[in-house]
Amino acid sequence: MVEFAADGGAILGHRFVEAGAPQLEVMDLSATRGDGVFETISTGAGHLQALEPHLRRFAHSAALLELPPPDLDAWRDVVVEVARRLGAVDEGAVDEGFVKIVLTRGVEGEDVPTGWAYATVSPDYSAVRTTGIRIVLLDRGYHHDIANTSPWLLAGAKTLSYAINRAAFREAARRDADDTLFVSSDGFLLEGAVSNLVLRTGRRIVTPRLDLGILTGTTQADLFRFVEGQGYETGYELLTPSDLLAADAAWLVSSVRHAAPVRAIDGVEFPVDHALSDGMNDFLRTRTE
Amino acid sequence: MVEFAADGGAILGHRFVEAGAPQLEVMDLSATRGDGVFETISTGAGHLQALEPHLRRFAHSAALLELPPPDLDAWRDVVVEVARRLGAVDEGAVDEGFVKIVLTRGVEGEDVPTGWAYATVSPDYSAVRTTGIRIVLLDRGYHHDIANTSPWLLAGAKTLSYAINRAAFREAARRDADDTLFVSSDGFLLEGAVSNLVLRTGRRIVTPRLDLGILTGTTQADLFRFVEGQGYETGYELLTPSDLLAADAAWLVSSVRHAAPVRAIDGVEFPVDHALSDGMNDFLRTRTE
Repeated sequence: MVEFAADGGAILGHRFVEAGAPQLEVMDLSATRGDGVFETISTGAGHLQALEPHLRRFAHSAALLELPPPDLDAWRDVVVEVARRLGAVDEGAVDEGFVKIVLTRGVEGEDVPTGWAYATVSPDYSAVRTTGIRIVLLDRGYHHDIANTSPWLLAGAKTLSYAINRAAFREAARRDADDTLFVSSDGFLLEGAVSNLVLRTGRRIVTPRLDLGILTGTTQADLFRFVEGQGYETGYELLTPSDLLAADAAWLVSSVRHAAPVRAIDGVEFPVDHALSDGMNDFLRTRTE
Repeated sequence: MVEFAADGGAILGHRFVEAGAPQLEVMDLSATRGDGVFETISTGAGHLQALEPHLRRFAHSAALLELPPPDLDAWRDVVVEVARRLGAVDEGAVDEGFVKIVLTRGVEGEDVPTGWAYATVSPDYSAVRTTGIRIVLLDRGYHHDIANTSPWLLAGAKTLSYAINRAAFREAARRDADDTLFVSSDGFLLEGAVSNLVLRTGRRIVTPRLDLGILTGTTQADLFRFVEGQGYETGYELLTPSDLLAADAAWLVSSVRHAAPVRAIDGVEFPVDHALSDGMNDFLRTRTE
């Protein structure tokens, strides 16, 4: 199911259309240049999760790409309506789904942004949330301060130009792993290809500092509120691979898969904190906002 | 005018459709992930130019992205037919046009690539070929040997993930310039956002080495054959901004704009070699293969 919204800062109008039918012109700059931004908002137990942080990040990404500022009230209405039409979600028959929203620079030469929202049922990630994932560390090629020195590289924007993120998954698979953790060219831990890193060392839970050209983690932020309620101390830090290897547990967290515990790093076994993983995922799956 | 070709390594079939009508599903990975490759082949005086090098680079980009190898014989037929339908081109009424070809990973979850070809008349670049362009040097963020150390960063592939290339144009405009020349994080000249750099120093004409994670220049290669015929020596070198500033003339060369002489660098005037520029562009515009 898909919703397609004509948009130009303000949403000019929208209509409901078939996801499997052609909707985009081939000269849309999303398709020819990856020139746009997106967000993926999970639904669980009938509720949209972290909707406001996702909308804020959507607007932030648009600003970094100098797209017209999206009318977040209009986008919120669209997201709510698309999630409602997913239907089963808010009737409990489907436990988990997500809404993907996209804003592009529009058809080349026309200067009118294109936007759409698409909702579907999530894949079943219950097994991976329990058994965990094998990750590899891959160089992201950029120095840790790239977002400050070179804003045209769009570090920190959730853009449609994700060919590298997908290549990182293929490289992980080639190394018999499931996922990637990017490292800056000067040796600092950054983020996963579509996730944020969270480490536990004793009673302290940390994630990489947000000034490293990485995405602000919406799921990570909710997770921090949860673990703080469990008595953990939290922090944003400059972390190295050594910090990861010395940690008691680690997760890659994201909107749809939620908290995936790391069970191997570059082919070496790594401890999984099953109890905390279960607690995190129970919380994330059933958030009501 | 656009042609849309269903493709899966071999082209399964194709049909002619309207460029201005919806053709792509919103879940096509070109639109959601910039996950695909492209080429732009110019036509001049009724001839497709550098078609074979473009097709080879298309296949090379597809290999770097681990897409199914495109059937180049089928793609060649499509390009020739789309260019023929542009019509006026081979009747001399339109002097310059181009064909853009795109191969994507297809609709998410379906594992069938999508492909299309689009032909149109080129913008009129005659003025810029004479008066020249103002460029700024921007850090590309990557070390010069990134293609060797980190292939998952896809350096050297002409992908649809071009949001950074477009942001570089906006940054140039912000600095009152027309175009960008990327520099590696360790200080070597790389390429333009959609072009290759060519420098003249005396009777020697050089371009950056091809192992720097840059695109192999199809237009630059033809240009080298031309200037060699004019008695210039050519070479592929590791170049720095100092080499550029010390040069007698410089160009950003690309398939549709051809040879754009550099007339200012980071706000400082730079000499234009008008005679050689005119010779280059006369040659490039009228190539018959």
